[in-house]
Amino acid sequence: MKIYDTKTAPTPRRVRIFLAEKGIEMEYVQVDIEKGENLSKHMRAKNPIGKVPILELDDGTCISESDAICTYFEALQPAPYLFGETALEKGQVMMWQRQVEFCLFMQIGMCFQHSTGYFKDRMTPVPEYGKEAGINAVKFLKVLERRLEQSEYIAGDKYSIADITAFCSIDFARVVDIKLGDEHPQLTRWYQQMRNRPSAKA
Amino acid sequence: MKIYDTKTAPTPRRVRIFLAEKGIEMEYVQVDIEKGENLSKHMRAKNPIGKVPILELDDGTCISESDAICTYFEALQPAPYLFGETALEKGQVMMWQRQVEFCLFMQIGMCFQHSTGYFKDRMTPVPEYGKEAGINAVKFLKVLERRLEQSEYIAGDKYSIADITAFCSIDFARVVDIKLGDEHPQLTRWYQQMRNRPSAKA
Repeated sequence: MKIYDTKTAPTPRRVRIFLAEKGIEMEYVQVDIEKGENLSKHMRAKNPIGKVPILELDDGTCISESDAICTYFEALQPAPYLFGETALEKGQVMMWQRQVEFCLFMQIGMCFQHSTGYFKDRMTPVPEYGKEAGINAVKFLKVLERRLEQSEYIAGDKYSIADITAFCSIDFARVVDIKLGDEHPQLTRWYQQMRNRPSAKA
Repeated sequence: MKIYDTKTAPTPRRVRIFLAEKGIEMEYVQVDIEKGENLSKHMRAKNPIGKVPILELDDGTCISESDAICTYFEALQPAPYLFGETALEKGQVMMWQRQVEFCLFMQIGMCFQHSTGYFKDRMTPVPEYGKEAGINAVKFLKVLERRLEQSEYIAGDKYSIADITAFCSIDFARVVDIKLGDEHPQLTRWYQQMRNRPSAKA
């Protein structure tokens, strides 16, 4: 099996970190999204919406969407549990995963796409919306700061996929000049923990 | 336990249909989001981002985010499997669930929020972005139409949470005048199947 990956993009990085945490080795095939290689007929046969990452199994079956690829490997090899172990943990991890994704990761992504015009050959940037998305992301950092006053990791007392999504969001946010500051002591503490994990290099 | 719900909104409906399919009875407490009841201090203590649905367990623990609530009940009572049974099914269901959610459900939601100004007391609508979101939703209906040429349900040969998300998306899309038409024979066939399920009334 192999994963079609883009080393510089934040979404595929979530999968690389997840697999590193699981100790699963993988073959990565680089796709140049800036040049639009992901939009080729060849790649659209693997994922009709033309995005990476894509996991291709040995029989040619493809699974796209970072969360779906992680879900597949969590089911194949549950430990260490990154989506939670009990029903309650699974619900709580998914709750934080979704909130981090919608209120931070995607807002930063939309801010980047709509304010820089990086993909203007394939979408219509609306700079006013990009600005709003950036404001939304900064607001959600306050929610995370309060959360991390109560718990070591985002979803509770165990490291989870929600930490991976938040870490990749905050690292990528530098491209739109959103950074942790003095008003984020807990996030800064947590961010250092994330950066010290060997998986951060994935 | 109980769920804070808004009968007219598309997101909580996904949970109601999911629980109806599982045969799980639930107490629903109505929250008037138009009046902003979801933004009260009382509700923000249950979900800091002020959204419904929220599941409240008997000990006061809260799980928000529709997918997270469904994840919790899938873990408590796996059958009938609505997130897939095998690792491959789980990955494929999650892939379609995510694509339907990002490329259809959220685009319709953004189109509604940004073009109608329904929530202008609590966000800044960007009508130009609302228009783009509507265009994105219509484009994704083509992807689903092609998909349903190959399979009975969206994620394969079994009904899943991806069908619930798509069904709620398409029903809600009427508010922004996006409807299935003659160019969608497979989607129309599938939509009738969805509407005939008893859960559609949930």
